[in-house]
Amino acid sequence: MPNRLSMVVFSGTVDRLYPAAIMASGAVAMGMDVDIFLTFYGLDAFRKGQPSTNTKMDVNYAELAPMLAQLMREKNVPSWYEMLRIAKEMGKVRVHACAMTLDLMGLKKDDLDPIIDDVVGVGEFVSQAKEGEITLFL
Amino acid sequence: MPNRLSMVVFSGTVDRLYPAAIMASGAVAMGMDVDIFLTFYGLDAFRKGQPSTNTKMDVNYAELAPMLAQLMREKNVPSWYEMLRIAKEMGKVRVHACAMTLDLMGLKKDDLDPIIDDVVGVGEFVSQAKEGEITLFL
Amino acid sequence: MPNRLSMVVFSGTVDRLYPAAIMASGAVAMGMDVDIFLTFYGLDAFRKGQPSTNTKMDVNYAELAPMLAQLMREKNVPSWYEMLRIAKEMGKVRVHACAMTLDLMGLKKDDLDPIIDDVVGVGEFVSQAKEGEITLFL
Repeated sequence: MPNRLSMVVFSGTVDRLYPAAIMASGAVAMGMDVDIFLTFYGLDAFRKGQPSTNTKMDVNYAELAPMLAQLMREKNVPSWYEMLRIAKEMGKVRVHACAMTLDLMGLKKDDLDPIIDDVVGVGEFVSQAKEGEITLFL
Repeated sequence: MPNRLSMVVFSGTVDRLYPAAIMASGAVAMGMDVDIFLTFYGLDAFRKGQPSTNTKMDVNYAELAPMLAQLMREKNVPSWYEMLRIAKEMGKVRVHACAMTLDLMGLKKDDLDPIIDDVVGVGEFVSQAKEGEITLFL
Repeated sequence: MPNRLSMVVFSGTVDRLYPAAIMASGAVAMGMDVDIFLTFYGLDAFRKGQPSTNTKMDVNYAELAPMLAQLMREKNVPSWYEMLRIAKEMGKVRVHACAMTLDLMGLKKDDLDPIIDDVVGVGEFVSQAKEGEITLFL
């Protein structure tokens, strides 16, 4: 049975979506399964059309963040979304939308980016995560 | 022996206190025990009187956060505090205050909301958390 | 075999570097090994010269953060860096720099504070972390 990395992605800034995608890639490369549970701002970042237009960076790093974004463009670093898409092609990465957040926002699965596999409740996610080896909240 | 979810709650904004309470509820519904370790801004959010007056939302989401807060009011979503209180009634949820933060702030247990069970050191929390299945830092 | 605490330190504000250092200390005191993986703003906070000059606090807590910083000075609380240095002397604490972030910033290991042990890829870190008991993202 493969190991599992479970991430709750609460944040919706580009700089925190990168670590989610990068760790998903790294885990898949190591033969691990990945479960991502999108909630709050993290789910909003996956509304249809959002992944390609989101340029929000953490305001705490107002000097550093634009420099990083600039370096990424110059060095042709793939977007966090592209990294996540490739990780999904290379291994078992499941992207779950938080049912409660979806309800609250009055959205349906069709309003979300197609990279999302399903809509699950927090209880289901928690009981999956406890079978895994790594759990992170981003 | 039941499984355990351990959360270090460092943040004190309402939008991050919700996931703590919601995951506590979800874990309890799945028969898990929950340990919450309140530190820094997370502990400040549990000073007496704070839970009911705190309206702070993450400044990174200045457009989205007020919309979410508004939707919660309209849909009569219980407060994060109420969710946590109910989770405590339904299962084994222990809320710990970080001894070092309490000391630093010059506070005593009596200055904190009664939902808090005890005051513990970080070493004690870490050694509890390592027996658990899910560990998160919020 | 000792237990292990693995932390991904993404944040570079002083108030989030403290929990990293404090949890490292607590874990070491409990006989655990600690692995810290520095990425993004967390790695920037470990550039040479940065640890002693960084005074950045989370902007979400603009009233509380300066009060905490002031209390720490008054009570002679050691800096997060000093706490981490002592934890390293007392036990097995390894501090890793994220290879991808280093590359992106155009930095070399020599540009980083000497407390950093090595430069590792995310895959290597993830596969170490899954052997551990506690995994946190700060």
